[in-house]
Amino acid sequence: MTHIFYFFYGFCLCLSLLCALFVVIWNLHWRGGFAWDRSLLHFNWHPVLMVSGLVILYGNAAVVYRIPFTWKQRKLVCKLVHAGMMFVALLLSILGLSAVFDFHRGFNIPHMYSLHSWVGISTVLLFASQWILGSIGFLLPCSPPWMRSFLKPVHIWMGRIILVFSLASCISGINEKLLLTLNGISAALYNALPVEAVFVNFLGILIMAFGMAIFGILFVKKWQRPEDEGPENAYLLLSEDTP
Amino acid sequence: MTHIFYFFYGFCLCLSLLCALFVVIWNLHWRGGFAWDRSLLHFNWHPVLMVSGLVILYGNAAVVYRIPFTWKQRKLVCKLVHAGMMFVALLLSILGLSAVFDFHRGFNIPHMYSLHSWVGISTVLLFASQWILGSIGFLLPCSPPWMRSFLKPVHIWMGRIILVFSLASCISGINEKLLLTLNGISAALYNALPVEAVFVNFLGILIMAFGMAIFGILFVKKWQRPEDEGPENAYLLLSEDTP
Repeated sequence: MTHIFYFFYGFCLCLSLLCALFVVIWNLHWRGGFAWDRSLLHFNWHPVLMVSGLVILYGNAAVVYRIPFTWKQRKLVCKLVHAGMMFVALLLSILGLSAVFDFHRGFNIPHMYSLHSWVGISTVLLFASQWILGSIGFLLPCSPPWMRSFLKPVHIWMGRIILVFSLASCISGINEKLLLTLNGISAALYNALPVEAVFVNFLGILIMAFGMAIFGILFVKKWQRPEDEGPENAYLLLSEDTP
Repeated sequence: MTHIFYFFYGFCLCLSLLCALFVVIWNLHWRGGFAWDRSLLHFNWHPVLMVSGLVILYGNAAVVYRIPFTWKQRKLVCKLVHAGMMFVALLLSILGLSAVFDFHRGFNIPHMYSLHSWVGISTVLLFASQWILGSIGFLLPCSPPWMRSFLKPVHIWMGRIILVFSLASCISGINEKLLLTLNGISAALYNALPVEAVFVNFLGILIMAFGMAIFGILFVKKWQRPEDEGPENAYLLLSEDTP
């Protein structure tokens, strides 16, 4: 099964790279590049940071335990890598949010009016709560076993839900940006499908394909880390850290 | 566990009802109601049919096997109810698509330009393929056991993916409709958050909450139908249909 996993995982990495490339090229080539000065270019950090943090890094962090190579490492190392990647993903998302809030301030645009923003902020709030609860529950040696065994299924379920929320936020956000930007230039430019629109719609499809691939990896039981973490075992991880 | 399931399931049904009510009230009260005449009112069927078919009915059909009451019924009956509900959901989605295509024709608006439409059409295509493959694989008595055992995990994984796609399509579609309609009336009415915008954003959050609840029910292993369908057993379902 290992080579099939690595084939699939390689596919995920290619999609990650393509999503990152597409979102950067979009904002460099068609939207004028980046700045952190409350100008129009300030906004461009928003899609780049959200797609990189909330989708690409989040998705890759979610499947860290599935990589057979990591099974030979101590579980604590995997946990720290997982938590560390998720922390960077959360930081990028918060930076991405601050980019759009700062841009709004520069142009006196009200915050948080669109459904995209409601779903997006819910995603980041769920993600932050998940990271804090996960760190307390699974990394602090003093967290009781009953709490770990209660938290584990909730953590796994919520982890998937956050990815679903991220995908919905990204698709609605990209769609909103294209509608506002292209139709802002000419009354109905988006529906004439200029090259930018096709390129960015394709970015949206790549993001959904990446989500499909990550859910695929998480779905296959044989790709789960072999030794299952019982509550007592989990409790000892920080103190006796078994290989 | 049964009473906890029914509590959760009842919550799902309440969310289903609320989503349906909200999407109908939105289009009746703020968008002028319904017609099938290529007018503006023709479009209003699109959100109602998509939310009802692709989200509410689809989600409820996905958890049919989880209802403990159905465990006493023959598996074939459950399969037929599942396939039947999915068929109605697919029909509603196709009607919902035809509503938007007809509306476009009436106003000479090009089809399939937005990312929402790309993700939406992918959702319906995946759903149609899933329904056809599922019916051939799990309902036709002549389908070989190896095909059933190969198809089953793909069917389950794809079933979840389609729900993720539906949620992303609905959120981006509702966001797009509000942007085009409200900003069409006055340059930036959506960001002034009129009552309609708050109401419909809340519909979007209800839809995401419904998705969370459905994924929650699907996630709990104890709520799976007890007797597991082995490949030979599955093969006999239509001929020997065990209770």
